[in-house]
Amino acid sequence: MTRNFADRLNAAIARCGNACLVGLDPHLELLPSEFDDARDVHCSRARRAQRVGDFCCQVIDLIAERVPAVKPQSAFFEVLGADGAQAWERVVCHAHRANLLVIGDVKRGDIASTAAAYATAFLEGSTPGEREHLCDAVTLSPFLGADSIDPFLSACRRSGTGAYVLVRTSNKGSADFQRHGEPELSFLVADKVKQWGADLVGESGWSSIGAVVGATHGAELRAFRERMPRTPFLLPGYGAQGASASDVVGAFTSSASGPPLGALVNSSRGITFAYRDAQHRGKPWQRATSDALDTMIREITAALGAVR
Amino acid sequence: MTRNFADRLNAAIARCGNACLVGLDPHLELLPSEFDDARDVHCSRARRAQRVGDFCCQVIDLIAERVPAVKPQSAFFEVLGADGAQAWERVVCHAHRANLLVIGDVKRGDIASTAAAYATAFLEGSTPGEREHLCDAVTLSPFLGADSIDPFLSACRRSGTGAYVLVRTSNKGSADFQRHGEPELSFLVADKVKQWGADLVGESGWSSIGAVVGATHGAELRAFRERMPRTPFLLPGYGAQGASASDVVGAFTSSASGPPLGALVNSSRGITFAYRDAQHRGKPWQRATSDALDTMIREITAALGAVR
Repeated sequence: MTRNFADRLNAAIARCGNACLVGLDPHLELLPSEFDDARDVHCSRARRAQRVGDFCCQVIDLIAERVPAVKPQSAFFEVLGADGAQAWERVVCHAHRANLLVIGDVKRGDIASTAAAYATAFLEGSTPGEREHLCDAVTLSPFLGADSIDPFLSACRRSGTGAYVLVRTSNKGSADFQRHGEPELSFLVADKVKQWGADLVGESGWSSIGAVVGATHGAELRAFRERMPRTPFLLPGYGAQGASASDVVGAFTSSASGPPLGALVNSSRGITFAYRDAQHRGKPWQRATSDALDTMIREITAALGAVR
Repeated sequence: MTRNFADRLNAAIARCGNACLVGLDPHLELLPSEFDDARDVHCSRARRAQRVGDFCCQVIDLIAERVPAVKPQSAFFEVLGADGAQAWERVVCHAHRANLLVIGDVKRGDIASTAAAYATAFLEGSTPGEREHLCDAVTLSPFLGADSIDPFLSACRRSGTGAYVLVRTSNKGSADFQRHGEPELSFLVADKVKQWGADLVGESGWSSIGAVVGATHGAELRAFRERMPRTPFLLPGYGAQGASASDVVGAFTSSASGPPLGALVNSSRGITFAYRDAQHRGKPWQRATSDALDTMIREITAALGAVR
């Protein structure tokens, strides 16, 4: 995968006709009842990891060809230790085979050769023949500064992969540090993200270095968009976290042909655990997930109608 | 391990007579020549991970009983995928059996149930009988705010573990964001770290919630110490990164009996890859590592003489 990540992403969005991203957060306690065996106190960790992998692969089969990408959350695999790491590789592989781009939600941030090791781990691989379980992009935390991001930029250039840097997160506590200072820290990070991605702009006009901007801050999205005009956004917060389709509009711009571009709108448990929501009660979980994704695609598409 | 982490740490420091921390960053390219097989292009990932684990366990055997703790760096295990995750568990187990505390250098930072999953992964475990490969403490990134730290505080309270929050890192780029605003972001984080750790102060008078403060900023250490009087520091930057023994003094305070307390001074490749340094040329790597640790303990102890 040496083609520019942003170009591959935008081609996938055009192919699917939407920019919805399904987050895979396989929290053991939230899995449907047919996975009860994995919650049994006597269930081995290896078996739990197997079942977590089963669930994610089934979700992938349900959503493949309908969305451009998935975002597995590393923590829910790491909680199962080395067995979880195997499940992670299996799920990433399965997503690639289903023609989905994979954005590894790992939020790593470290320096020098340690950052380079993380970049190798997720984007480039250390041994031949292990490309299938690598990610197309990862999420990164900027706290340690530019030299913590540099090794990822180099990896992205070499391998046609991408990175989404945390700029303003969707949680309440994001204000604690991200809004500190004048300008607010998030705006300072935004300016750096723009700069870091400048020489990774692809043929589609978008950079492979993106920004995570919480969709729960809808009013600010346009300000971030103005500061980072070629930066693809990853927007968490839609659905379960309370943001609506109209909140995300400010992140998008029209494209010559096909759907508006500029962001991926993420929903995690609103899709994968839709069976728990009142409006889907009584449905098999697969049906609930499928219907919830239909609704999300319809809502986002309608909200973006004005941008088109 | 339900006893307060700070109390366990200070007991270990008193037992060893020093507060030196050995970082395990098993970068494949830097392993001694007897590990050449792991660098062979045809070497499988599983075998590489085996050899990385071998190296770390041998280092542990060399330093056990001489220092209170080790700090394995997750990235150098993650780079070997699921095989690396197995090696991580083996190394953590081996360190515990050698009576070393384990500080997992993972720098995680995420929100809500995701943060809770990370806390479970590293500090509490999700299945019975897997305590041996858990850490006594982890490093955390504060970028996402207080609600990203809360789940770790809860885990620390329940399980007698600890966390070191990044406050000011030792790299050049730390100035990019950590010095932003008035007061500087690092000081704002420091005030929060003090607050987060307030109800985790143990019998030794120190909290289980610590701060990572680069020893390369020796002049600022006293300012951070004043702001966080009961917060144990983790000081990277000694040795290979350029800080000297006298730079770390400001982090320590005298204790009623035994060595000064208040910080762990970390050295990673300065110890584990000492065989590469000019002054150890010609020695077997084990001897170089052992001698380098002797020198570090002696230098730190001498520098702290005035504090005693």
